[in-house]
Amino acid sequence: MNLIKRVAIVGGTHGNEFTGAYLIKKFEQYPELVQRSSFETLTLLANPKAFAATRRYIDQDLNRAFLTQDLQNSTLSDYEALQAKTIAQQLGPKGNAQVDVIIDLHSTTANMGLSLLLANRSPASLQLASYVSSINPLVKVCSPHPESESAGLRSLCDLGLVIEVGAIAQGVLDAYWFLKTEELIHTILDYLQTCNQGTYPIGESSLTLYETIATIDYPRRAAGEIQAMIHPDLQGRDYEPLNPGDPMFLGLDGQTIVYEGRSTVYPIFINEAAYYEKGIALTLTQKQTINVPKI
Amino acid sequence: MNLIKRVAIVGGTHGNEFTGAYLIKKFEQYPELVQRSSFETLTLLANPKAFAATRRYIDQDLNRAFLTQDLQNSTLSDYEALQAKTIAQQLGPKGNAQVDVIIDLHSTTANMGLSLLLANRSPASLQLASYVSSINPLVKVCSPHPESESAGLRSLCDLGLVIEVGAIAQGVLDAYWFLKTEELIHTILDYLQTCNQGTYPIGESSLTLYETIATIDYPRRAAGEIQAMIHPDLQGRDYEPLNPGDPMFLGLDGQTIVYEGRSTVYPIFINEAAYYEKGIALTLTQKQTINVPKI
Repeated sequence: MNLIKRVAIVGGTHGNEFTGAYLIKKFEQYPELVQRSSFETLTLLANPKAFAATRRYIDQDLNRAFLTQDLQNSTLSDYEALQAKTIAQQLGPKGNAQVDVIIDLHSTTANMGLSLLLANRSPASLQLASYVSSINPLVKVCSPHPESESAGLRSLCDLGLVIEVGAIAQGVLDAYWFLKTEELIHTILDYLQTCNQGTYPIGESSLTLYETIATIDYPRRAAGEIQAMIHPDLQGRDYEPLNPGDPMFLGLDGQTIVYEGRSTVYPIFINEAAYYEKGIALTLTQKQTINVPKI
Repeated sequence: MNLIKRVAIVGGTHGNEFTGAYLIKKFEQYPELVQRSSFETLTLLANPKAFAATRRYIDQDLNRAFLTQDLQNSTLSDYEALQAKTIAQQLGPKGNAQVDVIIDLHSTTANMGLSLLLANRSPASLQLASYVSSINPLVKVCSPHPESESAGLRSLCDLGLVIEVGAIAQGVLDAYWFLKTEELIHTILDYLQTCNQGTYPIGESSLTLYETIATIDYPRRAAGEIQAMIHPDLQGRDYEPLNPGDPMFLGLDGQTIVYEGRSTVYPIFINEAAYYEKGIALTLTQKQTINVPKI
């Protein structure tokens, strides 16, 4: 019996993240590329209206619209609320999804290279991540703080993943990252195929995880206007240690603002364009080494 | 008598190009930074509504809205058309402008470093450019094909300049380029101040100019959808020679499309996010060395 019966590859959840959107366009034209004999592969351009407008979203961030209570709330009727309900009908519902794996393709203006964002720390997620890391040691693996329900599209099924690549400007198709992302998708599909065939590929027994612990906003004036930018010493240094006293922001007044936390952290999503409006200049993570559960 | 009486520094002509917009914010807070004793300096956030929305424009590209016939056309009444008319009243009119110099601050997702885009090849423009190049040899100087009237904001006065910096993602404030742009502004203001004092700073006697000769669009399907991306070998190589037969695009089908021109050209604005909708994947220039007219 196959463990994995259906896999969904999703792109354009944010309409101005072209890597994923055009990979979906490519897979629609050449579906054989993502077919594997032991499972079915679906592809989905998640936010076609935002993609056509080269905008992240039309009314609200689609990748924050998948809370169960919102999916069940009939009064929510803006474009992305409706789109989320449609996608949940196609792939979900949570807890009883029609697909076994979701690979949601994103890009960031932060220098995050090739990153895998897990929806959770289930054994299946960790095993997949550790295998992918063993094939490509440059891949970084992030996990959310295990707390409240995720509002992301990937939360529709248990084995939900985001591939996050960068730095890529919004509205730009970057061939280098396009090819790297495509390669990573094939690594994952081949892994799932091998799992179905009963010979589980073994990854490393330990895995480095970057777990989100907090976010930090830009220093702002009372009216909300930004008063400082990411410090040049921090720009582009995602996944590198940020120590207490290290420069974090450079004010318009020329003054340096340092990180005042008590311990070393590992920032990600440094200077992500889409997060200015969310009040996030960088996301702090803890670097952890965990043992991967045996299959 | 001072040759230069008023200088306008303009930012946020495109609302999602944060370098210029936040430099204007900084200069509004610290006006003494851009004051010089021999002339008046104005600062202007050109498209505040687009800046607030983190979009290039609301209705149309403001930096294409300054043709004389459009400024005089009372039937044009969208947001940017009205904004262009207001700015023309403040700084213009063309041929009889109230300012002697316009420095319009832009950024690009292309890897153009620090570039100076001249509005024309007047002796004053060339002398300024050659001085700036002599102070910072990394600055590249571009000039338009000398033909039709420019629709850019900088065309309001004879000595109109764009500072174009990149690669910077839209909607991102990048401290490195912010500081580099600020430094270049000071070089220009100091140059103008010295000119007013009668001791013309002398730049190099010859100047390398990149003159626009053509643009090339992405290969597209009948419906307009992009079928190829900038080839990884070309990405980021603005101002480098592109020879006949060199890779230019990589198709979604994996095929390489080469440059089929007859002579070596020097591309700029390679993969600029804002130009996808304009049908421009890259702009071709000819590299020229010209003699700078003596003062």
